Amino acid sequence: MYLSKFFIPITKDLPTEAKIKSHQLMLRAGMIKQSSAGIYSWLPLGFKVMKKIEQIVREEQNFIGAHEMLMPTIQSSEIWKESGRFDDYGEEMLRIKDRQGREMLYGPTNEELITDVFRSSVKSYKSLPQLLYHIQWKFRDEIRPRFGVMRCKEFYMKDAYSFDLSDEEAKKSYNKMFYSYLKTFNRLDLKAIPMVADTGPIGGDLSHEFVILAESGESKIYADKKIFEIDPTQYNFDDSSLQKMREDFTKIYAVTDEKYKKDNFNKLVKKENQIITKGIEVGHIFYFGNKYSKPMNCLIDDKDGKKTLVKMGSYGIGVSRLVGAIIEAKYNNEIMKWPKSISPFDVVIIPKVSKNNNENLEKAEKVYIQLKKQNIDVLLDDVDENMSNKFKKHDLIGVPYQIIIGAKSEGDNFEFKELNSKSEILSLEKIKLKLNR
Amino acid sequence: MYLSKFFIPITKDLPTEAKIKSHQLMLRAGMIKQSSAGIYSWLPLGFKVMKKIEQIVREEQNFIGAHEMLMPTIQSSEIWKESGRFDDYGEEMLRIKDRQGREMLYGPTNEELITDVFRSSVKSYKSLPQLLYHIQWKFRDEIRPRFGVMRCKEFYMKDAYSFDLSDEEAKKSYNKMFYSYLKTFNRLDLKAIPMVADTGPIGGDLSHEFVILAESGESKIYADKKIFEIDPTQYNFDDSSLQKMREDFTKIYAVTDEKYKKDNFNKLVKKENQIITKGIEVGHIFYFGNKYSKPMNCLIDDKDGKKTLVKMGSYGIGVSRLVGAIIEAKYNNEIMKWPKSISPFDVVIIPKVSKNNNENLEKAEKVYIQLKKQNIDVLLDDVDENMSNKFKKHDLIGVPYQIIIGAKSEGDNFEFKELNSKSEILSLEKIKLKLNR
Repeated sequence: MYLSKFFIPITKDLPTEAKIKSHQLMLRAGMIKQSSAGIYSWLPLGFKVMKKIEQIVREEQNFIGAHEMLMPTIQSSEIWKESGRFDDYGEEMLRIKDRQGREMLYGPTNEELITDVFRSSVKSYKSLPQLLYHIQWKFRDEIRPRFGVMRCKEFYMKDAYSFDLSDEEAKKSYNKMFYSYLKTFNRLDLKAIPMVADTGPIGGDLSHEFVILAESGESKIYADKKIFEIDPTQYNFDDSSLQKMREDFTKIYAVTDEKYKKDNFNKLVKKENQIITKGIEVGHIFYFGNKYSKPMNCLIDDKDGKKTLVKMGSYGIGVSRLVGAIIEAKYNNEIMKWPKSISPFDVVIIPKVSKNNNENLEKAEKVYIQLKKQNIDVLLDDVDENMSNKFKKHDLIGVPYQIIIGAKSEGDNFEFKELNSKSEILSLEKIKLKLNR
Repeated sequence: MYLSKFFIPITKDLPTEAKIKSHQLMLRAGMIKQSSAGIYSWLPLGFKVMKKIEQIVREEQNFIGAHEMLMPTIQSSEIWKESGRFDDYGEEMLRIKDRQGREMLYGPTNEELITDVFRSSVKSYKSLPQLLYHIQWKFRDEIRPRFGVMRCKEFYMKDAYSFDLSDEEAKKSYNKMFYSYLKTFNRLDLKAIPMVADTGPIGGDLSHEFVILAESGESKIYADKKIFEIDPTQYNFDDSSLQKMREDFTKIYAVTDEKYKKDNFNKLVKKENQIITKGIEVGHIFYFGNKYSKPMNCLIDDKDGKKTLVKMGSYGIGVSRLVGAIIEAKYNNEIMKWPKSISPFDVVIIPKVSKNNNENLEKAEKVYIQLKKQNIDVLLDDVDENMSNKFKKHDLIGVPYQIIIGAKSEGDNFEFKELNSKSEILSLEKIKLKLNR
């Protein structure tokens, strides 16, 4: 991609409405544009990052055997009346009347709709366990949307639902999702800690929030620092290993503020291991048994032909919110460095361009063609601008690797820089090896 | 994928509410489930097909240099008041009041929002031409939704927008999209004919509908049969070839009913070449110059530094509607055969399974593993059901190739069948070659 052809409205001004660094960066780097309070358009740079996050989430859902589908954004109020949540949900639910006066709503979550899909589709225990998920826009009519995509009205979320015959089987599904979440955040280069959490309007008695530490977080968290030492990659994908995984995490104290009790914290965690800080919730999982299957009469035949209520759980990851959360974690000292797995481009070529001398640009174009041939996604900064401004701009865009074509490049050797590191002079072959690592 | 683990609620009943064959098939094959009038959930089988169509649309948009982004579903009424369409649009627009009483709407189309994004981002002719697109859910509050995903309320659409400095440049963008559409439909194995069309609520004076012929179509079309003989693959992606392409298509009579005039038709088209039939609109492109840039004051600096109104066009493809349209075109004599490019699976293995004999199933599993190793996406029908029922089921699912493991398979040779053709006995190596063609 040539930068001059890309749609990336970078702005030098620090937007006054943006109070946290992810919101500032996303506006300055032209990743998003607000269309109305709490509602954003995703411009190509932001969109590209969000899509890469979405794809990692998808792959890790598929890995544990979840099936992707898609439920609509607009739902009928009827199923919400069946579950009892139509009245309970409060004003955050965007309620709509269609032209015929029917009560509709923009789904803030999908427990009711998936239960309705399931009860009309599955009759027998033979089809269980079943994991279904979708990645779809949700809407919550926040009274004070803020922090950019971190607390906005229209947001992109992966929500999965599990269906099992018994509590015991259902816990296995819960563990699979727990595992999938650890793997997902690991691939996003995030240290996300599962914390015992309150279940809120979703309901149930077993719930974990996955939280990354960040000053700007809205959740207060209390933890034993030993929980940060567990290596999530040590577990295998089988029921007993997954059970051990959850036990390993659960036996160490880590809770969000709704679950915090001072006495417990002091009793269970040594003073020197106590961590009290703030975090950003990036995922939340729930097990709630028959909370929805009971009022909505979602029954299946068990092995003896007896009708039984299906046991359900739900599992969310905020895909659009993760873009902001990752920036909160990775943007420091005015330099953004995207994790390689979700960077908008693999590498950026920055030639020193001037009106009277095309030599560097021509060199850059040759390198560009060679890298493209290797399926490396390259951004070429062909803009006529001084190098100091260019570097500042690329500190915002955050592509982790740069090939700088100026005074230091000679023949087939180029200045290669990883953000936050020193540059080195390397042959194009060596650069390719580094990029393909 | 093992069929027994897949979420695919196939039903033998012919749904009474479904009047056309695509709607019937999609319900029977468990591709969709209605959640409320005109609103559907996409179950895994339907979702998979829709995603493949989406990806082809995306690749062909990217090919012509369009940049993908994403605008939200919920928009403020303010920009629609600027353009004058808030009052004009009528009751099909789903109007919403948020909790603070602000007038919002669920976007039926995005000319206003993209104009707002553009006017705040681009100031200079140097950034032109610019093509932006997104693939997003839209909502039209149809009074009588019908025909399944063909005329529903919530639908998935690719809409692109072009921005140019002059009418002349803008026509080049129009031609690029025209070309992209021909290529897209070609890859979907559809014969879509560009027809001169009315511009309706989008506006402008140049517009083409891309229509496929189908008995169930809602558009009446009048054409010279010579237009079906133009080979769209003969044109190159350069301005002069694209101009010739549009001229070649445009000089042959082909119009939708709003543009039809009997006298013209009889004067311009020989009696024996006249085609009067019905069709399904799968794409629609518009050039409308400054219809939106003028009321919304979307200005750019031209080469002389003079402010000038940007010239715009818009370009839609109904992605969810295409799933239905392709079924209308390809589902005949109770057999659905998906085009290879968008089939939910590359091949299905159908072993003859019985309770007391696992031999065929074990053979099938070995073949399954070997095909998976080659990145072939395989469905394995491991269900215990008689073969006649299995074949009927797979006539609905529509995977174009079958490997049948029963009496006729011997050693490493298997019965291989392309839907609507005779089966043959082939070695697995030969089958792999056929699938990778």
